[in-house]
Amino acid sequence: MGTGRIEAFSDGVIAVIITIMVLDLKAPSDASWTTLLQTGPGLAIYLLSFVVVGIFWMNHHHALHAARAPEPPLMWSNLAVLFALSLIPFVTAYVASAHGSPLPVACYAVTLALSSLSFTLLNGVIAAQHPAGDIVRVQYRRFIWKGTVVVGCYLLAVPLAYVNVAIAYTIFVVIPILYVLPDRATVDER
Amino acid sequence: MGTGRIEAFSDGVIAVIITIMVLDLKAPSDASWTTLLQTGPGLAIYLLSFVVVGIFWMNHHHALHAARAPEPPLMWSNLAVLFALSLIPFVTAYVASAHGSPLPVACYAVTLALSSLSFTLLNGVIAAQHPAGDIVRVQYRRFIWKGTVVVGCYLLAVPLAYVNVAIAYTIFVVIPILYVLPDRATVDER
Amino acid sequence: MGTGRIEAFSDGVIAVIITIMVLDLKAPSDASWTTLLQTGPGLAIYLLSFVVVGIFWMNHHHALHAARAPEPPLMWSNLAVLFALSLIPFVTAYVASAHGSPLPVACYAVTLALSSLSFTLLNGVIAAQHPAGDIVRVQYRRFIWKGTVVVGCYLLAVPLAYVNVAIAYTIFVVIPILYVLPDRATVDER
Amino acid sequence: MGTGRIEAFSDGVIAVIITIMVLDLKAPSDASWTTLLQTGPGLAIYLLSFVVVGIFWMNHHHALHAARAPEPPLMWSNLAVLFALSLIPFVTAYVASAHGSPLPVACYAVTLALSSLSFTLLNGVIAAQHPAGDIVRVQYRRFIWKGTVVVGCYLLAVPLAYVNVAIAYTIFVVIPILYVLPDRATVDER
Repeated sequence: MGTGRIEAFSDGVIAVIITIMVLDLKAPSDASWTTLLQTGPGLAIYLLSFVVVGIFWMNHHHALHAARAPEPPLMWSNLAVLFALSLIPFVTAYVASAHGSPLPVACYAVTLALSSLSFTLLNGVIAAQHPAGDIVRVQYRRFIWKGTVVVGCYLLAVPLAYVNVAIAYTIFVVIPILYVLPDRATVDER
Repeated sequence: MGTGRIEAFSDGVIAVIITIMVLDLKAPSDASWTTLLQTGPGLAIYLLSFVVVGIFWMNHHHALHAARAPEPPLMWSNLAVLFALSLIPFVTAYVASAHGSPLPVACYAVTLALSSLSFTLLNGVIAAQHPAGDIVRVQYRRFIWKGTVVVGCYLLAVPLAYVNVAIAYTIFVVIPILYVLPDRATVDER
Repeated sequence: MGTGRIEAFSDGVIAVIITIMVLDLKAPSDASWTTLLQTGPGLAIYLLSFVVVGIFWMNHHHALHAARAPEPPLMWSNLAVLFALSLIPFVTAYVASAHGSPLPVACYAVTLALSSLSFTLLNGVIAAQHPAGDIVRVQYRRFIWKGTVVVGCYLLAVPLAYVNVAIAYTIFVVIPILYVLPDRATVDER
Repeated sequence: MGTGRIEAFSDGVIAVIITIMVLDLKAPSDASWTTLLQTGPGLAIYLLSFVVVGIFWMNHHHALHAARAPEPPLMWSNLAVLFALSLIPFVTAYVASAHGSPLPVACYAVTLALSSLSFTLLNGVIAAQHPAGDIVRVQYRRFIWKGTVVVGCYLLAVPLAYVNVAIAYTIFVVIPILYVLPDRATVDER
């Protein structure tokens, strides 16, 4: 019994998460430009969340391929990742409804920190499934290190949101870009 | 024709169930701490339901692997499991909107009892697909026994919710923990 | 290239259809028995729709296994089935919100007639993919005949809903039962 | 590692997109013919969007089969397609709520233009994965040309919606028909 069904289930959950966020984008109440433009910030944060969840999906794609067995620690850390990701539509709607205020932005930062933390845990479980010295183990230990830095950055965004919301938004935009680059590095290695 | 497509369909349904619950977590109406804290109990019951559905999914994962043929009794008992599970988002929203009142908590208990009952039925169908003396049959008969006790505990939570809601909540939290432990026992056996 | 991905996509769509219906079951606004009992008819019609969609899924399961090639007629008749099924959550919510009135019940009947009609079309496409005299072709011609009768019964429920809503409801409950029985006949044949 | 999981994930996302649109079709508030008929335009635009997303799914089906490797450009252009498609439920609800006004219709046109543009990009990535002279590359270069024309037509619908909304609607209905015909041509070639 391989990790195929965990992949299928996770794909299903992530597919629903990434798509239901659009349900919180309410259609403008009338056909004027004024009300349409009010959906702009909501659309921007939706795009950001879509990209973030998309990157998590791609990394998850690689992670489960490196996993060896569907043992309980893998199942549970994977479930923790899915739970943390499932909160993203909630905080996305929160930021969209009250953008500019620091509290929703801080909640968004905490949720992304939780998602990265649980994903780092999942990477740790996968690393532990390989013998010491194995190339996958070495690679995943680097991912764990990187993930820990990302968690720290997201947590840093919490107080910074109270200084200036724009700083927190900048962190939210920069991290996905950085998260993608090392992935490309992994591809180069092969 | 194997049980592959039943698995795929069930995975899809359970993935949707586990994710749409978050749609009932409405974003706070303003950016104050007071309204944010009001979502706390809703978040807690969502976490509980997420874990419960997650455990059902893991057990379902094992159950369908033990199933032999996609015969009508398997299809129907599986559909009963999916129907009972699909009511969990409904009762989760009910408990979240009126937490502290015994009636929603009792409905939550009845829904979990129904889910466990239908899952026990599914286990019974799987046990019957194997010849007497087969190890899978012996194992699934134990699952049936365990499932019956769990149904009883959930039904017991109904009157206990009227004594004190906290007792019912305790049962909801303890059963998933107990449900996980025997699963680990199964893994040890292999 | 087989019909595997049509199956996967259809499974996904049907899984979403069967599950999102529960989103229209709004949690009672307070914790009293009176408001809880008001969700009773909505729950009953949800159960009926769940079973109807579940049966369509099972028959779809068999139909796509009998299909030979993912040609345009198969793709389009399959898409028609999915479209008709996707209206079931809409009419389910309509009946639930205004049960007892003949118009919603008539709309429910028309939607089920459309679903059966498009499914009969799909069966026709599958029958045409097999040479004359082939056992699958013979079997699917019988399904087409049966499907046509079912469409007629659902259309008959439209005027009967205006005579007495209970007659229409009876048709809705009896047809799924009849639809299941011949399936069992098919199993016996094998 | 093939493109199988990208297919599975994309199927999941498209399945959710095509189905959640029906959630924006609110059940009529009472059981009168007047309120039922008011859902007519919403139902018509839902049918159109369902067919459009269905065609995108079919073309996606062919595209991913022609793809060679799940490299970052494929992953990202695919994610762009999914993002653009995920906005279709939003603009469908917008057109349904304020049909007849040019602004929602123009937004619908822009969203379809974005979807076709990102899909053309995906086709370009696939064409680039094949060596010059390869039949798939030739075929996909033709798709890119066709896609560019379609993007142009959708963009043309934006100003035309302000001339007369009916012209834009005509474009929305005609393009899917034209998009299907060349697909049939591809089938003939094989």
